[in-house]
Amino acid sequence: MKNIAYYEGRTSLIDEMMIPANDRAFYFGDGIYEAATVYNHKIFALDDHLDRMFNSAAIVNIKLPYTREEYAAILKDLVKQVDHEIQFLYWQVSRASAPRGHAFPGDAKPTLYVYSKPLEKVEMKDDYHLISVPDTRYFHCNCKTLNLIVNVMAADQAKSCGCQEVVFIRDGLVTEGSHSNIHIIKEGKLITHPLDNLILPGTERKHILRYCDQLGIPYEERAFSLDELKAADEIVISSTSQPFMRAISVDGQPAGGKDPEICEKIRSCYWAEVADLYE
Amino acid sequence: MKNIAYYEGRTSLIDEMMIPANDRAFYFGDGIYEAATVYNHKIFALDDHLDRMFNSAAIVNIKLPYTREEYAAILKDLVKQVDHEIQFLYWQVSRASAPRGHAFPGDAKPTLYVYSKPLEKVEMKDDYHLISVPDTRYFHCNCKTLNLIVNVMAADQAKSCGCQEVVFIRDGLVTEGSHSNIHIIKEGKLITHPLDNLILPGTERKHILRYCDQLGIPYEERAFSLDELKAADEIVISSTSQPFMRAISVDGQPAGGKDPEICEKIRSCYWAEVADLYE
Repeated sequence: MKNIAYYEGRTSLIDEMMIPANDRAFYFGDGIYEAATVYNHKIFALDDHLDRMFNSAAIVNIKLPYTREEYAAILKDLVKQVDHEIQFLYWQVSRASAPRGHAFPGDAKPTLYVYSKPLEKVEMKDDYHLISVPDTRYFHCNCKTLNLIVNVMAADQAKSCGCQEVVFIRDGLVTEGSHSNIHIIKEGKLITHPLDNLILPGTERKHILRYCDQLGIPYEERAFSLDELKAADEIVISSTSQPFMRAISVDGQPAGGKDPEICEKIRSCYWAEVADLYE
Repeated sequence: MKNIAYYEGRTSLIDEMMIPANDRAFYFGDGIYEAATVYNHKIFALDDHLDRMFNSAAIVNIKLPYTREEYAAILKDLVKQVDHEIQFLYWQVSRASAPRGHAFPGDAKPTLYVYSKPLEKVEMKDDYHLISVPDTRYFHCNCKTLNLIVNVMAADQAKSCGCQEVVFIRDGLVTEGSHSNIHIIKEGKLITHPLDNLILPGTERKHILRYCDQLGIPYEERAFSLDELKAADEIVISSTSQPFMRAISVDGQPAGGKDPEICEKIRSCYWAEVADLYE
């Protein structure tokens, strides 16, 4: 198939998939999601995504009806059906499909929606422009829920300004982007926001810290200010589909771009893991 | 019909309505909503709901494709088709139905989903129990968006404790409930949180202030603390479907219930306006 969507056992093309209006994702954004990159019909870092999925579900008291292995089997089966080597795989679990009411329905059975579609290629870009905006999101950013309206507003604002991502600022400190984590490199050290309720525990963030360990690059998990970001040697944006992007401007002023060598070293660790999926 | 759902021109029973998975409400909660009570097949306070709908849409940059009159005509037509005098009418507008991507799709055409279903009766209850919880929501509570996961978590927590509503506390002050506004009455005066980005501009809140004006009851729009709530003569919960509920306990301790007369006066103004719909 050229792409595939799945909802509770049914499959179709993405544009043709219909779901019940009563799904609580539609009424409340009452669900969680994951997205992964697929290379050679294999899901990159699937274990990390399943770990986070189960963690997100636990935070919002969604009792997942399937085991990790059962979810993995469904996802693996679906990506095999798409006629493209590299894919963008997305899945979300809603608390239930039930008549609308704020409190959880007593017989809540979580629903699973999945899609996978071709991705031309995953690029490591060196030309991101960033714009800082106030972080007015909720205090549950560690949970990958479907409550993303502040994120989509911010992403659209970035795009309108010719930027690729925002820098969310909360209480004077950089938290993350609208759909990515943000790190800086200064004097050979990588600095990244600590894992708390203000940022998503990005799978790529986790990998980057592991790559730093492998390479002997020191890193520090602490929040940093916008001024510190602007003065950094490198500004790194990471997410599943943007594994390691370098920014060259913040709020219209040149920034970063002063330590390409360290960036290339970290990127090469990512590509080595991708290569493993072709063996 | 025993109830009705509508999506982009199609109608069905609510439980049978299917919508595209690509609707951005399903992926991001990227939309806004309204709910109104219907008496005698007429929509109570429709103008207030349309005012708020257009205001919410403007806040999140959703360009509504229909006029107020066109939305009103669709809603009025649907409630006539349900075989019940009193109904709960709900509608939501999503930014678009389009392939998933954070930034707004260039050709975004907002979608309209509506349902209306029988409501046994609207009661004014005197026995609400409340529980206080931290308000960890975003800073856009003045906009009635579909990003409600914190609200549904809180509503479920209240229910689990045998309570009817939560009292959200932000920075030491009461904001509102999970799906209602909260007011107090002390020494003959009604006190309610001011309209800002921390609370929803409730239609019933607006009416209650108007009723106070009609009745010569003084009111003050200012935030109050949990202690002030607990020491109030009356604690009032208001929303479209809970127009004026009195609370009798907060966090397991007796509270309120000391000025029923003033409450009955305000309630009678509501019932007088309902009676107008039967003329």
